[in-house]
Amino acid sequence: MTKEEDKQSRREFLHSVGDIGGTVAVYQAMISMGLMMPGEAEGAGLRNQWEARSNQLATETKPTVAVLGGGISGLCVGYELKKAGFPFFVVEARERPGGRSHTIRAGSIIDEVDSQQTCAFDSQEELYFNAGPARISQHHSNLLAYCRELEVPLQPLINDNRGAYIHNSAAFGGTPVRAREIIATMRGNITELLAKALNANTLNGDIGIDERSFVLDVLRDYGALNNNYKFTGSSRGGVVPGTGGLTPRQSIQPLNLNDFFFDTSVPFKVNFGESYNQAATMMQPVGGMDRIAYAFANQLKEELYYEAVVTAIRRTGSRVRIEGRLNGVEGAVEVDYAIVAMPPSVIRDIPNDFSLSTRNAIAEVEYAKPIKIAFQSPRFWEIEEQIYGGISWTDDEILQIWYPSGGFGQDTGIILGSYLFDGSHAINFANLGVEARKEFTLAAGEKVHPQYRQNLSRGISVAWAKVPYSLGGWAKSTPSPVLQQADGPFLFAGDHLTYLHGWQEGAVISSLNALNKLLDIMEA
Amino acid sequence: MTKEEDKQSRREFLHSVGDIGGTVAVYQAMISMGLMMPGEAEGAGLRNQWEARSNQLATETKPTVAVLGGGISGLCVGYELKKAGFPFFVVEARERPGGRSHTIRAGSIIDEVDSQQTCAFDSQEELYFNAGPARISQHHSNLLAYCRELEVPLQPLINDNRGAYIHNSAAFGGTPVRAREIIATMRGNITELLAKALNANTLNGDIGIDERSFVLDVLRDYGALNNNYKFTGSSRGGVVPGTGGLTPRQSIQPLNLNDFFFDTSVPFKVNFGESYNQAATMMQPVGGMDRIAYAFANQLKEELYYEAVVTAIRRTGSRVRIEGRLNGVEGAVEVDYAIVAMPPSVIRDIPNDFSLSTRNAIAEVEYAKPIKIAFQSPRFWEIEEQIYGGISWTDDEILQIWYPSGGFGQDTGIILGSYLFDGSHAINFANLGVEARKEFTLAAGEKVHPQYRQNLSRGISVAWAKVPYSLGGWAKSTPSPVLQQADGPFLFAGDHLTYLHGWQEGAVISSLNALNKLLDIMEA
Repeated sequence: MTKEEDKQSRREFLHSVGDIGGTVAVYQAMISMGLMMPGEAEGAGLRNQWEARSNQLATETKPTVAVLGGGISGLCVGYELKKAGFPFFVVEARERPGGRSHTIRAGSIIDEVDSQQTCAFDSQEELYFNAGPARISQHHSNLLAYCRELEVPLQPLINDNRGAYIHNSAAFGGTPVRAREIIATMRGNITELLAKALNANTLNGDIGIDERSFVLDVLRDYGALNNNYKFTGSSRGGVVPGTGGLTPRQSIQPLNLNDFFFDTSVPFKVNFGESYNQAATMMQPVGGMDRIAYAFANQLKEELYYEAVVTAIRRTGSRVRIEGRLNGVEGAVEVDYAIVAMPPSVIRDIPNDFSLSTRNAIAEVEYAKPIKIAFQSPRFWEIEEQIYGGISWTDDEILQIWYPSGGFGQDTGIILGSYLFDGSHAINFANLGVEARKEFTLAAGEKVHPQYRQNLSRGISVAWAKVPYSLGGWAKSTPSPVLQQADGPFLFAGDHLTYLHGWQEGAVISSLNALNKLLDIMEA
Repeated sequence: MTKEEDKQSRREFLHSVGDIGGTVAVYQAMISMGLMMPGEAEGAGLRNQWEARSNQLATETKPTVAVLGGGISGLCVGYELKKAGFPFFVVEARERPGGRSHTIRAGSIIDEVDSQQTCAFDSQEELYFNAGPARISQHHSNLLAYCRELEVPLQPLINDNRGAYIHNSAAFGGTPVRAREIIATMRGNITELLAKALNANTLNGDIGIDERSFVLDVLRDYGALNNNYKFTGSSRGGVVPGTGGLTPRQSIQPLNLNDFFFDTSVPFKVNFGESYNQAATMMQPVGGMDRIAYAFANQLKEELYYEAVVTAIRRTGSRVRIEGRLNGVEGAVEVDYAIVAMPPSVIRDIPNDFSLSTRNAIAEVEYAKPIKIAFQSPRFWEIEEQIYGGISWTDDEILQIWYPSGGFGQDTGIILGSYLFDGSHAINFANLGVEARKEFTLAAGEKVHPQYRQNLSRGISVAWAKVPYSLGGWAKSTPSPVLQQADGPFLFAGDHLTYLHGWQEGAVISSLNALNKLLDIMEA
C-alpha cells in the first residue's frame, strides 16, 4: 500500500465511522441542520415558550406584576412583560438602571457604605470602564439576541493578548514577560518531551508505530519544534528587535523552563482565555456595558421607577403587598405577583413573607466580593509597549491589569489597575480608603509598567461588597433549585439562579425562567 | 525542608539567576527601561535616523525626487519627503492610492486583465472587504505610528475565533467542527500522553522526581485533564446545549483522536493564529484598510498624480529621466533621484537603465498569486451560528471563510468566501470567469454553511496576478540585498525588499530604508 493509498483508506474508514454516528456526529448534524445551537438551546427554548404562551393570553386576564430590581434580570422581565401586555412596574433603588452592570465615565458616582466617589475622567466616548460585567461570550446568545433587538452595537473585547505581560516576582528575574513567550515555551517544551517519549517507544500502546509519524508531524507544528523534534525557540515567542524587516527574522531565546515549574500561577494564567466563557471571540458593547441596561430601560419609560426602595415584601392572601419608599415617600402597593430580581445579598435583609425554604435558600447564597480600580492615562501601553487590549497578570495583589479594547490609537485611555474576583486580597483592598487604594494599585502596577506613576491619574475604585443595593459581586455557591421555582405569588430572577454566576447571560436566562414559571402559576 | 521552604528557596535561586542575567533577562531589562521595543527597533531606528539627518539639510541643497508608485511604500516616501521639504512628486498609474491595499465597497471597481467588476454592495460603513492586506499586527509599530500620526482609527481584527469552524471532508463525518473542539482535544490528548510518560518514569532524565508534581499540575491545567491526568472532555471544547444555565454545565464529548492523526491539515490549521505576525491582538482600520492609504494621500494633495503611467526609467548622466503618460498625454521629466516603489512584477516590464545586478534581482523576485472573493449577506453566521469574526478553515479549495470583525449585530455583513495565498488552486480560481468564481465559492462554502446559497449575493472577486499595476500579491522569495541599496540615482521601496512580504509594515520599513539610502548617496 502506498502512502497515498493508506491515507485514502483512512479517510474512507473515518468517513464511514462518521456516517454511522456517535454523539458528536449527531450533535454536529443537528447543529448543521439548524435544529439546535450549542449553548443557547435552553435560553432560546425558554424565550420561545414564553412568547408562544404569553401570546395566547387574553388581555383582560393578565395579572398585575411587580418587578423588584432594575438590574439586567429585572429589566429583561419588564421588557418581556411589556411586550406581552401585562400591567406591571419595575422598581429600582438607584437613580439608574443596570445594578451591577455599571459603567463609570465622567461624572459617574460610585457609592459605597462609607464613601462616595465622583468620576473625574475626561468626557469622551472611550473614557469609561465597566465596574461590573465587562465581557460577553459569543455563545451568550440570549443576551446577544437582546443586544440585536435593542440595537446595542458590539465590538470585540480582547481577553487573550499575546503581547500583554505575565509578571511573577520570583520568575524571569522579576521582569514582566510577554504572554507569547510563556505560551511558546510551554507548548514547545510539552511537545518536545512528548516527542521524546514517542521516539523512545514508551507510548507504543497509545500511539502505534504506523501512527507515530503523523503524530510527530502534528507535535512539531503544534510546538514549533525543529526537525529533530527539539524546541530551540520560536518566533511565536517573539523576535529579536531589529530583525525580520530588512534582515532575516531571529527568534528570541526561549524562557528558561526552570522559571516555570516552581509556581503554577505562571502557566495557569496563560490558560485563562481557553475556558468556554472566556475564549475568543469575546465582546463588549461599544461605549460601555451599561448601554444594554439603558437600552432595556428606554423601553420602560413609564413602568420603571428609580429611587424606589423596597422595605418589605408581604403576602396578602394569595397576592403580594410591596412596601417601600418612592423618592423618599413611604407607601405600599398590592399586585398579583412579584418577580424579585434583587441580589440575595440584599433580599435577605428585607422583611418578607417568603417560605422558610426560600428564606434558607437566599440565606445560603455565598456572595463574592470583587473589586476593580481604574485610572485615566495616556496610552503608553500602546505607544511604548505595543499592547492593544487584553490583560496582564501579576502575582502581586492587584492580579490583573486590563487595557482598553476600544479606541486604539487615541491619546488617552482608561486602564484597569486591578480586578480581584474575591478572597482576602479583595477584602484588604475594599478596606482601604479610596485614596489608599490608588497608592496600593500604583505601587504594585509599576512593577509591571515603570511608567505608571507619571501617567495614571483620576483613579476611581469599586468594592462591590460595600456598594448599597448590591453588597457583593456574584454568587459563589451552586444555584438553589428552590429559587428557580415559584414560592406562592413570588418568583425570583438574577444570575445567582443559574450556573452563569456573574454573567448577564445568566441574568436573562433566569428572567425567562421566571416568566415561564409565572405562566405556570397563573394556569395552576 | 517543608514544601513552603522549598518553594521559597527555588524562588530565591531563580531570582538570583535572573539577577545574573542571560540574554532574556537583559533583553527584558532593556525593554522595561524603555531602551528598546521588541520588533520595532529597526524601523523606529531608521525613522529616527531619517528625521535627524533630513532636518540638518539646508533647504536650497535638496535634490528633486520622483517617487514611482502610490502604494503604501511610495505614499510613505512621499509623506516623509514632504515633511523634510524636498521637491518631489509621486506618480500612480491608478486613479486611487494604496496599490494592493484596496478596500472594496459600494461602487469600487476591480480591474483584471480580462474583466472589470463594479462592487454592488449596499452603501454602508461596514459593508466592505479588504482585497489586499487585511491585518495589522500589534508589533507593526512603524505602520501603527503612521496610523496614530495620521489619525486612522483602529479596531481589533479577530484571527483566532474558537467558535469558527474547521471542516475536513474526511474527518468528523465531513461535518464542520468548532475550532474550540479541535483545540481542546489536541491539548487534552497531548498533555494526557505526556503525563502518562512522566508517571511511567520514562522521562526522569528530563523532569526529575522532585519537579514532577509541579509539572503534572501544570499539565493538568494546560490540557484540562481530570485528577487522574486523563482527558475525558472539557467545557473548553464546548457545552452540551441546554446545560450550564439553570442546570450544571456538561462538556460535550471530546472528538475522536483518530479523526486527527491521518491528515495534518486539521491540527495545523488551528495553529495559524499562534504565529508572531498573526497572534492576538490583531487590528484593522475602522471602515477599511485603505483608510491608511487615503490618510497618506490626503497629505500629498499637490504632489500625488493619479493616472500617471511610467513607460521608461532612464539615466541621463547621474540624473534620472522618467517617461510616461499623465491622463493619457505622453511626456517626460528629469529629476535628481527616483525611488521606485512599484512591485517587481510590474517594474520588470518597464524599459529601464538599471544595472544588470538590479535587473537580475528584480527578475528573480517570485510573486505569489493570491485570490479573494467576498459576498454581501445577512449575518446568519452571527444569528444562527454564534460566530463573531474570525476564520473558518476547510480542506475544500476555498480554504478560508472570513467573518467581519466589525459591525457585530448589524443585519448585513460582508463575508469573505475564499482567500487563497498562492498555488494551483489560486491559479485555477483566477482562470475562472468572474461568474464562475462565485458558483465555485458557493458550492464549496455551503459544505461549511448550508445557508450559503440562500443568503450570499453580490459576489466580487480579485485575482491579484491578473490586476494591472500589481500583477501578483507579494514576493515569495528571499529579499535581495541588491534592491536595498542604491543603483546610481535609483532607489527601491516595497514590501518585497523586506522579510515582511505582503505586510504594510514591510512597505514602510522599506520606505524608511530608501530615504536613508537617499541621504547616503546625496552625501557621497
